[in-house]
Amino acid sequence: MTEWQAISLFITFEGIDGCGKSTQAGLLSEYLSRQYGSEKVLWTREPGGWPGSSCLREMLLSGELDHPWTEVFLFLADRCEHAKKIIEPTLLTGAHVLCERYDDSTLAYQVWGRGLDLGKVESAISLCGHRSPDKTILLEVSMETALKRASARSRPDRYEKEGKPFLERVREGYRFLQSREKDRFIVIDGESSPEVVFKRIFDSLEEFF
Amino acid sequence: MTEWQAISLFITFEGIDGCGKSTQAGLLSEYLSRQYGSEKVLWTREPGGWPGSSCLREMLLSGELDHPWTEVFLFLADRCEHAKKIIEPTLLTGAHVLCERYDDSTLAYQVWGRGLDLGKVESAISLCGHRSPDKTILLEVSMETALKRASARSRPDRYEKEGKPFLERVREGYRFLQSREKDRFIVIDGESSPEVVFKRIFDSLEEFF
Repeated sequence: MTEWQAISLFITFEGIDGCGKSTQAGLLSEYLSRQYGSEKVLWTREPGGWPGSSCLREMLLSGELDHPWTEVFLFLADRCEHAKKIIEPTLLTGAHVLCERYDDSTLAYQVWGRGLDLGKVESAISLCGHRSPDKTILLEVSMETALKRASARSRPDRYEKEGKPFLERVREGYRFLQSREKDRFIVIDGESSPEVVFKRIFDSLEEFF
Repeated sequence: MTEWQAISLFITFEGIDGCGKSTQAGLLSEYLSRQYGSEKVLWTREPGGWPGSSCLREMLLSGELDHPWTEVFLFLADRCEHAKKIIEPTLLTGAHVLCERYDDSTLAYQVWGRGLDLGKVESAISLCGHRSPDKTILLEVSMETALKRASARSRPDRYEKEGKPFLERVREGYRFLQSREKDRFIVIDGESSPEVVFKRIFDSLEEFF
């Protein structure tokens, strides 16, 4: 039995749209399921990771919100419920939780992307009182790769529609957040094939167990 | 031309479930429409007062939320968008806005009803930066009247399901809020027939114009 089986970890996947979060969370989930059983891992995402939340996800991705704080409050409502209903109970069973996007997304997108005040967004997040991730995989790709991957999707979401300068600011935000919490963040070069990137993630995580 | 025509007022209707908010807001809206034209008054409510918000209202009234802050964040997301899309633009056209429930509901229900911290909920509300009501009609009825009226509805909402002790705490909250801002609040005895109650509201508002 390795430490993987004994410790229940909360791992988030972060980075700008098109960096490969879903692909990599999926590959890690697959690996852990195969290794320890599917009941030992939960792969989820925000927004919309709990039953009944699809309307929140739809509202957030629609791009029809006018007040800058509406997004923050919707993301936080979604997170409170996701943490309480899904993430925290799953961790208590001893399973690992892999989650695409969490608090760092709210900070990077709303503060650096939209220009809201860092202290205010942080104080709103702190009201939730939810558990922080143990490790955060930050996938870094060039703007060209990100835009190419994102544009290949069927429907660009509201952040993708914001274009390059917006995503560059978000990336700047992620770098700042990572520089503040180097122990939690694991920065991964997200260029190359999914398999090569997964190998990098796997190697980086292994050394912590 | 009276002052009613010249000044655009933002009036909220508050009180526990079954106190008569909808009935009275409707009667005032009818009166103002008849007197000054239907374009001079907007009758709206929270949650769910803007196009696309029905899923938020549904989520809030469903009673299936587990985290105490989820409700606060959903109400605030709804309010930000309602203020930005509907209330503030309408006031700018010179029309009056009559709104059932607003910040006072969030404070009375979440702080006194649910037991959240007053300072924290107030600081979350202040993030919206929306306009405060000019006047707030607080309808007071006995617990018996409130429960009788509320139980006559087709589907009790989640607060009505909380029962009497919850609504008593909420009423306590409203009294505290009113005692803090006596200039804004107009306390109206909500017992008697709708017409008699409306006459009380009308008389109380008239003296401010």
